Amino acid sequence: MIQRLAIIGIGLIGSSIARVAREKQLAASIVCADRSQAHCTEALALGIVDAASTDPADAVAGADLVIICTPIGTYGAIAKAIAPALAPGAIVSDVGSVKQAAILALQPHLPAHVHLIPGHPVAGTEHSGPGAGFATLFDGRWCILTPLPDTNAEALTRLEAFWQGAGSNLATMTAEHHDRVLAITSHLPHLIAYTIVGTAADLEDQLQAEVIQYSAGGFRDFTRIAGSDPVMWRDVFLNNRDAVLEMLGRLHEDIALMQRAIRIGDGQTLQDLFTRTRAIRRGVLAAKQA
Amino acid sequence: MIQRLAIIGIGLIGSSIARVAREKQLAASIVCADRSQAHCTEALALGIVDAASTDPADAVAGADLVIICTPIGTYGAIAKAIAPALAPGAIVSDVGSVKQAAILALQPHLPAHVHLIPGHPVAGTEHSGPGAGFATLFDGRWCILTPLPDTNAEALTRLEAFWQGAGSNLATMTAEHHDRVLAITSHLPHLIAYTIVGTAADLEDQLQAEVIQYSAGGFRDFTRIAGSDPVMWRDVFLNNRDAVLEMLGRLHEDIALMQRAIRIGDGQTLQDLFTRTRAIRRGVLAAKQA
Repeated sequence: MIQRLAIIGIGLIGSSIARVAREKQLAASIVCADRSQAHCTEALALGIVDAASTDPADAVAGADLVIICTPIGTYGAIAKAIAPALAPGAIVSDVGSVKQAAILALQPHLPAHVHLIPGHPVAGTEHSGPGAGFATLFDGRWCILTPLPDTNAEALTRLEAFWQGAGSNLATMTAEHHDRVLAITSHLPHLIAYTIVGTAADLEDQLQAEVIQYSAGGFRDFTRIAGSDPVMWRDVFLNNRDAVLEMLGRLHEDIALMQRAIRIGDGQTLQDLFTRTRAIRRGVLAAKQA
Repeated sequence: MIQRLAIIGIGLIGSSIARVAREKQLAASIVCADRSQAHCTEALALGIVDAASTDPADAVAGADLVIICTPIGTYGAIAKAIAPALAPGAIVSDVGSVKQAAILALQPHLPAHVHLIPGHPVAGTEHSGPGAGFATLFDGRWCILTPLPDTNAEALTRLEAFWQGAGSNLATMTAEHHDRVLAITSHLPHLIAYTIVGTAADLEDQLQAEVIQYSAGGFRDFTRIAGSDPVMWRDVFLNNRDAVLEMLGRLHEDIALMQRAIRIGDGQTLQDLFTRTRAIRRGVLAAKQA
Protein backbone atom coordinates (compact mmCIF):
# COMPACT_ATOMS: atom_id res chain seq x y z
CA MET A 1 0.00 0.00 0.00
CA ILE A 2 1.12 3.55 -0.76
CA GLN A 3 1.43 5.87 2.23
CA ARG A 4 1.21 9.19 0.47
CA LEU A 5 0.15 9.44 -3.18
CA ALA A 6 0.91 12.74 -4.91
CA ILE A 7 -0.94 13.44 -8.16
CA ILE A 8 0.39 16.32 -10.25
CA GLY A 9 -2.45 17.59 -12.45
CA ILE A 10 -5.95 16.68 -11.32
CA GLY A 11 -7.72 16.44 -14.70
CA LEU A 12 -9.50 13.45 -16.27
CA ILE A 13 -6.71 10.94 -15.60
CA GLY A 14 -5.37 12.41 -12.36
CA SER A 15 -8.80 12.63 -10.78
CA SER A 16 -9.65 9.09 -11.94
CA ILE A 17 -6.49 7.84 -10.21
CA ALA A 18 -7.47 9.74 -7.04
CA ARG A 19 -10.97 8.25 -7.14
CA VAL A 20 -9.89 4.64 -7.63
CA ALA A 21 -7.07 5.01 -5.07
CA ARG A 22 -9.62 6.21 -2.52
CA GLU A 23 -12.27 3.64 -3.42
CA LYS A 24 -9.87 0.67 -3.42
CA GLN A 25 -7.79 2.02 -0.50
CA LEU A 26 -4.61 1.98 -2.56
CA ALA A 27 -3.08 4.91 -0.64
CA ALA A 28 -3.33 6.07 2.97
CA SER A 29 -3.40 9.71 1.93
CA ILE A 30 -3.88 11.36 -1.45
CA VAL A 31 -2.69 14.85 -2.28
CA CYS A 32 -2.68 16.74 -5.54
CA ALA A 33 -1.11 19.73 -7.17
CA ASP A 34 -2.61 21.65 -10.05
CA ARG A 35 -1.58 25.01 -11.42
CA SER A 36 -5.28 25.89 -11.53
CA GLN A 37 -6.58 26.99 -8.12
CA ALA A 38 -10.10 26.20 -9.41
CA HIS A 39 -9.09 22.57 -10.06
CA CYS A 40 -7.57 22.32 -6.56
CA THR A 41 -10.75 23.68 -5.00
CA GLU A 42 -12.92 21.36 -7.09
CA ALA A 43 -10.82 18.28 -6.19
CA LEU A 44 -11.12 19.12 -2.48
CA ALA A 45 -14.86 19.71 -2.81
CA LEU A 46 -15.26 16.36 -4.59
CA GLY A 47 -13.53 14.76 -1.60
CA ILE A 48 -11.12 12.84 -3.82
CA VAL A 49 -7.93 14.34 -2.29
CA ASP A 50 -6.90 15.14 1.27
CA ALA A 51 -4.91 18.21 0.31
CA ALA A 52 -4.34 20.27 -2.82
CA SER A 53 -1.80 22.92 -3.73
CA THR A 54 -0.87 24.98 -6.76
CA ASP A 55 2.79 24.21 -5.94
CA PRO A 56 3.85 20.69 -7.01
CA ALA A 57 6.73 20.74 -4.47
CA ASP A 58 4.12 20.94 -1.66
CA ALA A 59 2.34 17.87 -2.98
CA VAL A 60 5.36 15.62 -3.40
CA ALA A 61 6.89 16.31 0.04
CA GLY A 62 6.82 13.00 1.91
CA ALA A 63 5.12 11.14 -0.98
CA ASP A 64 6.22 7.59 -1.75
CA LEU A 65 4.42 7.63 -5.12
CA VAL A 66 4.25 10.66 -7.41
CA ILE A 67 2.24 10.42 -10.62
CA ILE A 68 2.52 13.25 -13.12
CA CYS A 69 -0.77 13.67 -15.04
CA THR A 70 -0.17 16.86 -17.02
CA PRO A 71 0.53 17.51 -20.73
CA ILE A 72 4.02 16.33 -21.60
CA GLY A 73 5.19 19.84 -22.45
CA THR A 74 5.10 20.65 -18.72
CA TYR A 75 7.23 17.70 -17.57
CA GLY A 76 10.61 19.46 -17.54
CA ALA A 77 9.43 22.37 -15.43
CA ILE A 78 7.55 20.07 -13.05
CA ALA A 79 10.56 17.76 -12.58
CA LYS A 80 12.73 20.79 -11.82
CA ALA A 81 10.19 22.13 -9.33
CA ILE A 82 9.64 18.88 -7.43
CA ALA A 83 13.23 17.57 -7.43
CA PRO A 84 14.36 19.22 -4.16
CA ALA A 85 11.22 18.08 -2.31
CA LEU A 86 11.24 14.41 -3.37
CA ALA A 87 11.72 11.88 -0.58
CA PRO A 88 14.48 9.26 -0.93
CA GLY A 89 13.05 6.05 -2.42
CA ALA A 90 10.00 7.79 -3.89
CA ILE A 91 8.63 6.40 -7.15
CA VAL A 92 8.10 9.08 -9.82
CA SER A 93 5.78 8.00 -12.61
CA ASP A 94 3.49 9.60 -15.17
CA VAL A 95 0.55 8.77 -17.45
CA GLY A 96 1.65 10.41 -20.70
CA SER A 97 0.96 8.94 -24.12
CA VAL A 98 4.59 9.38 -25.22
CA LYS A 99 7.35 7.70 -23.28
CA GLN A 100 10.76 8.43 -24.85
CA ALA A 101 10.16 12.16 -24.57
CA ALA A 102 8.87 11.71 -21.01
CA ILE A 103 12.15 10.14 -19.96
CA LEU A 104 14.16 12.83 -21.75
CA ALA A 105 12.17 15.56 -20.00
CA LEU A 106 12.13 14.07 -16.50
CA GLN A 107 15.36 12.15 -15.97
CA PRO A 108 17.90 14.99 -16.09
CA HIS A 109 16.15 16.85 -13.28
CA LEU A 110 15.40 14.04 -10.84
CA PRO A 111 17.72 13.19 -7.94
CA ALA A 112 19.47 9.80 -7.94
CA HIS A 113 17.60 8.75 -4.78
CA VAL A 114 14.18 8.39 -6.52
CA HIS A 115 12.88 5.72 -8.91
CA LEU A 116 11.70 7.01 -12.30
CA ILE A 117 9.27 4.51 -13.87
CA PRO A 118 7.27 6.03 -16.75
CA GLY A 119 3.77 4.67 -17.24
CA HIS A 120 0.78 4.95 -19.56
CA PRO A 121 -2.71 3.76 -18.70
CA VAL A 122 -4.33 3.24 -22.13
CA ALA A 123 -7.72 4.61 -21.19
CA GLY A 124 -9.53 7.90 -21.41
CA THR A 125 -12.52 9.83 -22.63
CA GLU A 126 -12.88 13.08 -24.53
CA HIS A 127 -13.79 14.96 -21.34
CA SER A 128 -11.40 17.08 -19.28
CA GLY A 129 -11.06 18.38 -15.73
CA PRO A 130 -11.42 17.03 -12.16
CA GLY A 131 -15.16 16.45 -12.62
CA ALA A 132 -14.63 14.23 -15.68
CA GLY A 133 -12.81 11.41 -13.89
CA PHE A 134 -14.33 8.18 -12.62
CA ALA A 135 -13.03 5.29 -10.54
CA THR A 136 -13.63 2.58 -13.16
CA LEU A 137 -11.72 4.30 -15.99
CA PHE A 138 -8.83 1.82 -15.79
CA ASP A 139 -10.86 -1.30 -15.16
CA GLY A 140 -9.87 -4.02 -17.65
CA ARG A 141 -7.72 -1.56 -19.62
CA TRP A 142 -3.99 -1.94 -20.15
CA CYS A 143 -1.40 0.05 -18.24
CA ILE A 144 1.97 0.03 -19.96
CA LEU A 145 5.09 0.66 -17.89
CA THR A 146 8.37 1.47 -19.63
CA PRO A 147 11.04 0.90 -16.96
CA LEU A 148 14.61 1.96 -17.67
CA PRO A 149 17.33 -0.72 -17.86
CA ASP A 150 18.46 -0.02 -14.28
CA THR A 151 15.02 0.25 -12.71
CA ASN A 152 14.79 -1.03 -9.13
CA ALA A 153 12.79 -4.29 -9.22
CA GLU A 154 11.03 -3.66 -5.91
CA ALA A 155 9.88 -0.20 -6.97
CA LEU A 156 8.57 -1.65 -10.24
CA THR A 157 6.62 -4.32 -8.33
CA ARG A 158 5.06 -1.66 -6.09
CA LEU A 159 3.97 0.45 -9.04
CA GLU A 160 2.55 -2.62 -10.83
CA ALA A 161 0.61 -3.53 -7.68
CA PHE A 162 -0.82 -0.01 -7.56
CA TRP A 163 -2.14 -0.22 -11.13
CA GLN A 164 -3.40 -3.76 -10.65
CA GLY A 165 -5.30 -2.43 -7.64
CA ALA A 166 -6.83 0.17 -9.96
CA GLY A 167 -8.12 -2.67 -12.17
CA SER A 168 -5.54 -2.45 -14.96
CA ASN A 169 -3.85 -5.22 -16.89
CA LEU A 170 -0.10 -4.64 -16.76
CA ALA A 171 2.44 -4.72 -19.59
CA THR A 172 6.05 -3.61 -19.73
CA MET A 173 8.03 -2.68 -22.83
CA THR A 174 10.71 -0.24 -23.92
CA ALA A 175 9.76 3.39 -24.30
CA GLU A 176 10.72 3.25 -27.98
CA HIS A 177 8.43 0.31 -28.68
CA HIS A 178 5.61 1.94 -26.73
CA ASP A 179 5.86 5.08 -28.83
CA ARG A 180 5.68 3.09 -32.05
CA VAL A 181 2.63 1.06 -30.96
CA LEU A 182 0.78 4.08 -29.62
CA ALA A 183 1.49 6.06 -32.78
CA ILE A 184 -0.85 3.72 -34.62
CA THR A 185 -3.36 2.81 -31.87
CA SER A 186 -3.87 6.28 -30.53
CA HIS A 187 -1.92 9.16 -32.04
CA LEU A 188 -2.77 8.56 -35.70
CA PRO A 189 -6.52 8.04 -35.01
CA HIS A 190 -6.60 11.27 -33.03
CA LEU A 191 -4.69 13.17 -35.70
CA ILE A 192 -7.02 11.95 -38.44
CA ALA A 193 -10.14 12.61 -36.39
CA TYR A 194 -8.96 16.14 -35.61
CA THR A 195 -8.14 16.71 -39.28
CA ILE A 196 -11.40 15.39 -40.70
CA VAL A 197 -13.43 17.40 -38.21
CA GLY A 198 -11.26 20.38 -39.09
CA THR A 199 -11.99 19.84 -42.77
CA ALA A 200 -15.70 20.05 -41.89
CA ALA A 201 -15.08 23.16 -39.78
CA ASP A 202 -13.71 24.86 -42.90
CA LEU A 203 -16.81 24.21 -45.00
CA GLU A 204 -19.21 27.01 -45.86
CA ASP A 205 -21.52 27.82 -42.89
CA GLN A 206 -24.65 26.28 -44.37
CA LEU A 207 -22.93 22.99 -45.23
CA GLN A 208 -21.22 22.92 -41.83
CA ALA A 209 -24.59 23.19 -40.06
CA GLU A 210 -25.82 20.23 -42.11
CA VAL A 211 -22.71 18.22 -41.31
CA ILE A 212 -23.54 18.59 -37.62
CA GLN A 213 -27.22 17.84 -38.21
CA TYR A 214 -26.52 14.61 -40.09
CA SER A 215 -23.48 13.57 -38.07
CA ALA A 216 -25.05 10.27 -36.98
CA GLY A 217 -23.81 8.77 -40.26
CA GLY A 218 -20.31 8.30 -38.84
CA PHE A 219 -18.92 11.81 -38.41
CA ARG A 220 -20.13 12.12 -34.81
CA ASP A 221 -17.70 9.37 -33.71
CA PHE A 222 -14.84 11.43 -35.10
CA THR A 223 -16.08 14.56 -33.31
CA ARG A 224 -15.97 12.67 -30.02
CA ILE A 225 -12.28 11.86 -30.50
CA ALA A 226 -11.64 15.37 -31.81
CA GLY A 227 -13.17 16.80 -28.64
CA SER A 228 -10.16 15.67 -26.59
CA ASP A 229 -7.88 18.09 -24.73
CA PRO A 230 -6.07 20.36 -27.26
CA VAL A 231 -2.92 21.06 -25.23
CA MET A 232 -2.40 17.47 -24.21
CA TRP A 233 -2.67 16.33 -27.81
CA ARG A 234 -0.53 19.15 -29.18
CA ASP A 235 2.21 17.92 -26.86
CA VAL A 236 1.74 14.30 -27.92
CA PHE A 237 2.34 15.14 -31.57
CA LEU A 238 5.27 17.43 -30.84
CA ASN A 239 6.86 14.68 -28.74
CA ASN A 240 6.26 11.57 -30.84
CA ARG A 241 7.04 13.18 -34.15
CA ASP A 242 9.02 10.46 -35.88
CA ALA A 243 6.68 7.55 -35.12
CA VAL A 244 3.58 9.61 -35.99
CA LEU A 245 5.07 10.82 -39.27
CA GLU A 246 6.08 7.28 -40.20
CA MET A 247 2.58 5.93 -39.59
CA LEU A 248 1.06 8.92 -41.37
CA GLY A 249 3.28 8.11 -44.35
CA ARG A 250 1.93 4.56 -44.47
CA LEU A 251 -1.64 5.84 -44.15
CA HIS A 252 -1.00 8.29 -47.00
CA GLU A 253 -0.05 5.43 -49.30
CA ASP A 254 -3.10 3.43 -48.27
CA ILE A 255 -5.43 6.40 -48.81
CA ALA A 256 -3.95 6.82 -52.28
CA LEU A 257 -4.79 3.18 -53.07
CA MET A 258 -8.39 3.71 -51.93
CA GLN A 259 -8.64 6.94 -53.88
CA ARG A 260 -7.50 5.18 -57.02
CA ALA A 261 -9.88 2.25 -56.46
CA ILE A 262 -12.80 4.65 -56.17
CA ARG A 263 -11.69 6.68 -59.17
CA ILE A 264 -11.36 3.68 -61.50
CA GLY A 265 -14.38 1.87 -60.02
CA ASP A 266 -12.40 -1.07 -58.65
CA GLY A 267 -15.03 -2.53 -56.33
CA GLN A 268 -13.08 -5.69 -55.57
CA THR A 269 -10.20 -3.80 -53.94
CA LEU A 270 -12.67 -1.86 -51.80
CA GLN A 271 -14.64 -4.94 -50.77
CA ASP A 272 -11.45 -6.89 -49.97
CA LEU A 273 -10.19 -4.16 -47.65
CA PHE A 274 -13.59 -3.71 -45.98
CA THR A 275 -13.71 -7.44 -45.34
CA ARG A 276 -10.19 -7.60 -43.87
CA THR A 277 -10.92 -4.74 -41.47
CA ARG A 278 -13.90 -6.63 -40.07
CA ALA A 279 -11.46 -9.27 -38.80
CA ILE A 280 -9.55 -6.60 -36.88
CA ARG A 281 -12.83 -5.46 -35.32
CA ARG A 282 -13.51 -9.03 -34.20
CA GLY A 283 -10.03 -9.08 -32.65
CA VAL A 284 -10.75 -5.93 -30.66
CA LEU A 285 -14.02 -7.40 -29.38
CA ALA A 286 -12.32 -10.72 -28.52
CA ALA A 287 -9.67 -8.79 -26.58
CA LYS A 288 -12.49 -7.09 -24.62
CA GLN A 289 -11.17 -3.62 -25.49
CA ALA A 290 -14.52 -2.34 -26.79
CA MET B 1 -51.54 4.18 -42.20
CA ILE B 2 -49.90 1.83 -44.69
CA GLN B 3 -51.93 -1.24 -45.67
CA ARG B 4 -49.12 -3.44 -46.90
CA LEU B 5 -45.47 -2.57 -46.33
CA ALA B 6 -42.95 -4.46 -48.44
CA ILE B 7 -39.32 -4.38 -47.29
CA ILE B 8 -36.74 -5.58 -49.80
CA GLY B 9 -33.67 -6.73 -47.88
CA ILE B 10 -34.24 -7.58 -44.22
CA GLY B 11 -30.82 -6.63 -42.77
CA LEU B 12 -29.99 -4.08 -40.09
CA ILE B 13 -32.06 -1.26 -41.59
CA GLY B 14 -34.84 -3.33 -43.15
CA SER B 15 -35.46 -5.31 -39.97
CA SER B 16 -35.39 -2.13 -37.89
CA ILE B 17 -38.10 -0.67 -40.14
CA ALA B 18 -40.13 -3.86 -39.75
CA ARG B 19 -39.75 -3.73 -35.97
CA VAL B 20 -40.77 -0.10 -35.59
CA ALA B 21 -43.63 -0.48 -38.10
CA ARG B 22 -44.99 -3.36 -36.04
CA GLU B 23 -44.43 -1.71 -32.68
CA LYS B 24 -45.97 1.64 -33.69
CA GLN B 25 -48.63 0.03 -35.89
CA LEU B 26 -47.48 1.96 -38.96
CA ALA B 27 -48.61 -0.80 -41.36
CA ALA B 28 -51.47 -3.31 -41.33
CA SER B 29 -49.28 -6.02 -42.79
CA ILE B 30 -45.52 -6.26 -43.26
CA VAL B 31 -43.84 -8.51 -45.79
CA CYS B 32 -40.23 -8.82 -46.81
CA ALA B 33 -38.08 -10.20 -49.56
CA ASP B 34 -34.46 -11.19 -49.16
CA ARG B 35 -32.31 -13.18 -51.55
CA SER B 36 -31.08 -15.14 -48.53
CA GLN B 37 -33.54 -17.86 -47.48
CA ALA B 38 -31.85 -17.86 -44.06
CA HIS B 39 -32.69 -14.18 -43.62
CA CYS B 40 -36.32 -14.84 -44.63
CA THR B 41 -36.58 -17.68 -42.13
CA GLU B 42 -34.96 -15.61 -39.39
CA ALA B 43 -37.29 -12.63 -40.02
CA LEU B 44 -40.34 -14.89 -39.79
CA ALA B 45 -38.99 -16.53 -36.62
CA LEU B 46 -38.41 -13.10 -35.08
CA GLY B 47 -42.07 -12.35 -35.79
CA ILE B 48 -41.22 -9.02 -37.41
CA VAL B 49 -42.83 -9.83 -40.80
CA ASP B 50 -46.07 -11.56 -41.79
CA ALA B 51 -44.58 -13.14 -44.90
CA ALA B 52 -41.16 -13.48 -46.47
CA SER B 53 -39.99 -14.51 -49.93
CA THR B 54 -36.74 -14.76 -51.84
CA ASP B 55 -38.58 -13.19 -54.79
CA PRO B 56 -39.01 -9.41 -54.47
CA ALA B 57 -41.95 -9.48 -56.92
CA ASP B 58 -43.89 -11.64 -54.41
CA ALA B 59 -43.32 -9.11 -51.65
CA VAL B 60 -44.36 -5.99 -53.55
CA ALA B 61 -47.63 -7.45 -54.95
CA GLY B 62 -50.42 -5.38 -53.42
CA ALA B 63 -48.04 -3.23 -51.36
CA ASP B 64 -48.77 0.49 -51.02
CA LEU B 65 -45.27 1.18 -49.66
CA VAL B 66 -42.13 -0.56 -50.88
CA ILE B 67 -38.81 0.24 -49.20
CA ILE B 68 -35.62 -1.10 -50.76
CA CYS B 69 -33.00 -1.80 -48.06
CA THR B 70 -30.25 -3.54 -50.05
CA PRO B 71 -26.80 -2.38 -51.24
CA ILE B 72 -27.18 0.15 -54.03
CA GLY B 73 -25.50 -2.13 -56.56
CA THR B 74 -28.61 -4.33 -56.50
CA TYR B 75 -31.12 -1.54 -57.19
CA GLY B 76 -31.32 -1.91 -60.96
CA ALA B 77 -32.01 -5.65 -60.88
CA ILE B 78 -34.54 -5.25 -58.06
CA ALA B 79 -36.40 -2.45 -59.87
CA LYS B 80 -36.57 -4.59 -63.00
CA ALA B 81 -37.83 -7.58 -61.02
CA ILE B 82 -40.55 -5.75 -59.08
CA ALA B 83 -41.76 -3.42 -61.83
CA PRO B 84 -44.46 -5.76 -63.27
CA ALA B 85 -45.83 -6.57 -59.80
CA LEU B 86 -46.10 -3.02 -58.45
CA ALA B 87 -49.61 -1.78 -57.66
CA PRO B 88 -50.78 1.53 -59.17
CA GLY B 89 -50.18 4.36 -56.70
CA ALA B 90 -47.60 2.44 -54.72
CA ILE B 91 -44.77 4.45 -53.17
CA VAL B 92 -41.32 3.04 -53.95
CA SER B 93 -38.59 4.29 -51.63
CA ASP B 94 -35.20 3.17 -50.35
CA VAL B 95 -32.74 3.78 -47.53
CA GLY B 96 -29.46 4.03 -49.43
CA SER B 97 -26.68 6.41 -48.49
CA VAL B 98 -26.33 7.68 -52.08
CA LYS B 99 -29.30 9.30 -53.78
CA GLN B 100 -28.38 10.45 -57.30
CA ALA B 101 -27.23 6.94 -58.20
CA ALA B 102 -30.35 5.48 -56.58
CA ILE B 103 -32.56 7.52 -58.86
CA LEU B 104 -30.49 6.61 -61.92
CA ALA B 105 -30.72 2.91 -61.05
CA LEU B 106 -34.42 2.77 -60.15
CA GLN B 107 -36.27 5.30 -62.29
CA PRO B 108 -35.76 3.78 -65.76
CA HIS B 109 -37.33 0.48 -64.68
CA LEU B 110 -40.32 1.68 -62.68
CA PRO B 111 -43.78 2.04 -64.24
CA ALA B 112 -45.30 5.52 -64.49
CA HIS B 113 -48.14 4.53 -62.13
CA VAL B 114 -45.91 4.38 -58.99
CA HIS B 115 -44.33 7.16 -56.93
CA LEU B 116 -40.55 7.00 -56.61
CA ILE B 117 -39.40 8.94 -53.52
CA PRO B 118 -35.81 8.12 -52.52
CA GLY B 119 -35.04 8.29 -48.82
CA HIS B 120 -32.17 7.95 -46.40
CA PRO B 121 -32.56 7.46 -42.64
CA VAL B 122 -29.23 8.71 -41.23
CA ALA B 123 -28.86 6.01 -38.61
CA GLY B 124 -27.15 2.69 -38.28
CA THR B 125 -24.71 0.52 -36.41
CA GLU B 126 -21.78 -1.63 -37.52
CA HIS B 127 -23.87 -4.80 -37.17
CA SER B 128 -25.59 -6.62 -40.04
CA GLY B 129 -28.47 -9.02 -40.58
CA PRO B 130 -32.10 -9.41 -39.43
CA GLY B 131 -31.05 -9.98 -35.81
CA ALA B 132 -29.10 -6.71 -35.67
CA GLY B 133 -32.10 -4.38 -36.08
CA PHE B 134 -34.01 -2.64 -33.30
CA ALA B 135 -37.18 -0.56 -33.19
CA THR B 136 -35.58 2.60 -31.77
CA LEU B 137 -32.84 2.89 -34.41
CA PHE B 138 -34.50 5.89 -36.07
CA ASP B 139 -35.66 7.62 -32.91
CA GLY B 140 -34.51 11.26 -32.93
CA ARG B 141 -32.37 10.68 -36.03
CA TRP B 142 -32.84 12.45 -39.34
CA CYS B 143 -34.50 10.89 -42.34
CA ILE B 144 -33.69 12.72 -45.55
CA LEU B 145 -36.08 12.42 -48.50
CA THR B 146 -34.95 13.51 -51.95
CA PRO B 147 -38.18 13.85 -53.95
CA LEU B 148 -37.97 14.43 -57.69
CA PRO B 149 -39.29 17.70 -59.14
CA ASP B 150 -42.60 16.09 -60.18
CA THR B 151 -43.18 14.05 -57.00
CA ASN B 152 -46.82 13.65 -56.00
CA ALA B 153 -47.39 15.79 -52.90
CA GLU B 154 -49.83 13.37 -51.29
CA ALA B 155 -47.44 10.44 -51.67
CA LEU B 156 -44.63 12.52 -50.16
CA THR B 157 -46.84 13.40 -47.18
CA ARG B 158 -47.65 9.72 -46.63
CA LEU B 159 -44.00 8.71 -46.69
CA GLU B 160 -43.08 11.55 -44.32
CA ALA B 161 -45.83 10.44 -41.94
CA PHE B 162 -44.44 6.91 -42.01
CA TRP B 163 -40.95 8.04 -41.01
CA GLN B 164 -42.30 10.45 -38.41
CA GLY B 165 -44.17 7.51 -36.97
CA ALA B 166 -40.83 5.68 -36.77
CA GLY B 167 -39.49 8.54 -34.63
CA SER B 168 -37.43 10.32 -37.32
CA ASN B 169 -36.97 14.03 -37.90
CA LEU B 170 -37.73 14.74 -41.55
CA ALA B 171 -35.74 16.78 -44.05
CA THR B 172 -36.05 17.12 -47.82
CA MET B 173 -33.34 18.21 -50.24
CA THR B 174 -32.14 17.47 -53.76
CA ALA B 175 -30.35 14.19 -54.34
CA GLU B 176 -27.26 16.10 -55.45
CA HIS B 177 -27.08 18.11 -52.23
CA HIS B 178 -27.69 14.99 -50.16
CA ASP B 179 -24.77 13.22 -51.78
CA ARG B 180 -22.44 16.13 -51.10
CA VAL B 181 -23.43 16.41 -47.42
CA LEU B 182 -23.23 12.68 -46.81
CA ALA B 183 -19.84 12.47 -48.51
CA ILE B 184 -18.42 14.40 -45.59
CA THR B 185 -20.67 13.27 -42.71
CA SER B 186 -20.61 9.58 -43.50
CA HIS B 187 -18.71 8.39 -46.55
CA LEU B 188 -15.37 10.08 -45.83
CA PRO B 189 -15.33 8.98 -42.14
CA HIS B 190 -16.03 5.41 -43.20
CA LEU B 191 -13.38 5.47 -45.91
CA ILE B 192 -10.76 6.83 -43.51
CA ALA B 193 -11.71 4.39 -40.75
CA TYR B 194 -11.51 1.49 -43.17
CA THR B 195 -8.14 2.71 -44.44
CA ILE B 196 -6.55 3.32 -41.04
CA VAL B 197 -7.71 -0.07 -39.79
CA GLY B 198 -6.37 -1.55 -43.03
CA THR B 199 -3.02 0.13 -42.43
CA ALA B 200 -2.92 -1.64 -39.06
CA ALA B 201 -3.94 -4.92 -40.68
CA ASP B 202 -0.83 -4.67 -42.87
CA LEU B 203 1.57 -4.34 -39.92
CA GLU B 204 3.84 -7.19 -38.89
CA ASP B 205 1.92 -9.82 -36.89
CA GLN B 206 3.45 -8.98 -33.51
CA LEU B 207 2.74 -5.26 -33.85
CA GLN B 208 -0.77 -5.97 -35.13
CA ALA B 209 -1.54 -8.04 -32.01
CA GLU B 210 -0.40 -5.12 -29.87
CA VAL B 211 -2.50 -2.67 -31.86
CA ILE B 212 -5.56 -4.72 -30.97
CA GLN B 213 -4.45 -5.09 -27.34
CA TYR B 214 -3.97 -1.35 -26.85
CA SER B 215 -6.86 -0.25 -29.06
CA ALA B 216 -8.61 1.62 -26.24
CA GLY B 217 -6.39 4.61 -27.04
CA GLY B 218 -8.64 5.64 -29.94
CA PHE B 219 -8.16 2.94 -32.57
CA ARG B 220 -11.08 0.84 -31.31
CA ASP B 221 -13.56 3.56 -32.34
CA PHE B 222 -12.24 3.31 -35.89
CA THR B 223 -12.55 -0.48 -35.85
CA ARG B 224 -16.22 -0.12 -34.95
CA ILE B 225 -16.88 1.99 -38.03
CA ALA B 226 -14.64 -0.27 -40.13
CA GLY B 227 -16.72 -3.27 -39.04
CA SER B 228 -19.66 -2.11 -41.19
CA ASP B 229 -21.05 -4.14 -44.07
CA PRO B 230 -18.38 -4.47 -46.83
CA VAL B 231 -20.70 -4.80 -49.84
CA MET B 232 -22.96 -1.95 -48.79
CA TRP B 233 -19.98 0.35 -48.38
CA ARG B 234 -18.27 -0.80 -51.56
CA ASP B 235 -21.42 0.25 -53.41
CA VAL B 236 -21.57 3.60 -51.62
CA PHE B 237 -18.07 4.53 -52.79
CA LEU B 238 -18.63 3.28 -56.32
CA ASN B 239 -21.83 5.32 -56.51
CA ASN B 240 -20.84 8.62 -54.91
CA ARG B 241 -17.44 8.83 -56.51
CA ASP B 242 -17.21 12.51 -57.38
CA ALA B 243 -18.37 13.88 -54.03
CA VAL B 244 -16.19 11.44 -52.07
CA LEU B 245 -13.10 12.19 -54.17
CA GLU B 246 -13.68 15.94 -53.77
CA MET B 247 -13.90 15.67 -49.98
CA LEU B 248 -10.92 13.32 -49.93
CA GLY B 249 -8.97 15.95 -51.87
CA ARG B 250 -9.76 18.56 -49.23
CA LEU B 251 -8.82 16.15 -46.46
CA HIS B 252 -5.52 15.40 -48.21
CA GLU B 253 -4.60 19.08 -48.13
CA ASP B 254 -5.53 19.33 -44.46
CA ILE B 255 -3.51 16.23 -43.55
CA ALA B 256 -0.53 17.76 -45.36
CA LEU B 257 -0.83 20.88 -43.20
CA MET B 258 -0.90 18.77 -40.02
CA GLN B 259 2.03 16.70 -41.24
CA ARG B 260 4.06 19.84 -41.83
CA ALA B 261 3.09 21.30 -38.44
CA ILE B 262 4.28 18.14 -36.71
CA ARG B 263 7.45 17.99 -38.76
CA ILE B 264 8.51 21.59 -38.06
CA GLY B 265 7.23 21.51 -34.46
CA ASP B 266 4.54 24.16 -35.00
CA GLY B 267 2.52 23.60 -31.81
CA GLN B 268 0.33 26.66 -32.29
CA THR B 269 -1.17 25.37 -35.55
CA LEU B 270 -1.93 22.03 -33.90
CA GLN B 271 -3.47 23.59 -30.79
CA ASP B 272 -5.57 26.01 -32.87
CA LEU B 273 -7.06 23.18 -34.93
CA PHE B 274 -7.67 20.98 -31.88
CA THR B 275 -9.49 23.88 -30.22
CA ARG B 276 -11.67 24.61 -33.26
CA THR B 277 -12.73 20.98 -33.56
CA ARG B 278 -13.98 21.03 -29.95
CA ALA B 279 -16.56 23.59 -31.03
CA ILE B 280 -17.87 21.21 -33.69
CA ARG B 281 -18.19 18.51 -31.03
CA ARG B 282 -20.25 20.89 -28.90
CA GLY B 283 -22.46 21.50 -31.94
CA VAL B 284 -23.06 17.77 -32.39
CA LEU B 285 -23.99 17.40 -28.72
CA ALA B 286 -26.28 20.47 -28.88
CA ALA B 287 -28.01 18.94 -31.93
CA LYS B 288 -28.60 15.79 -29.86
CA GLN B 289 -26.93 13.60 -32.51
CA ALA B 290 -24.55 11.88 -30.07
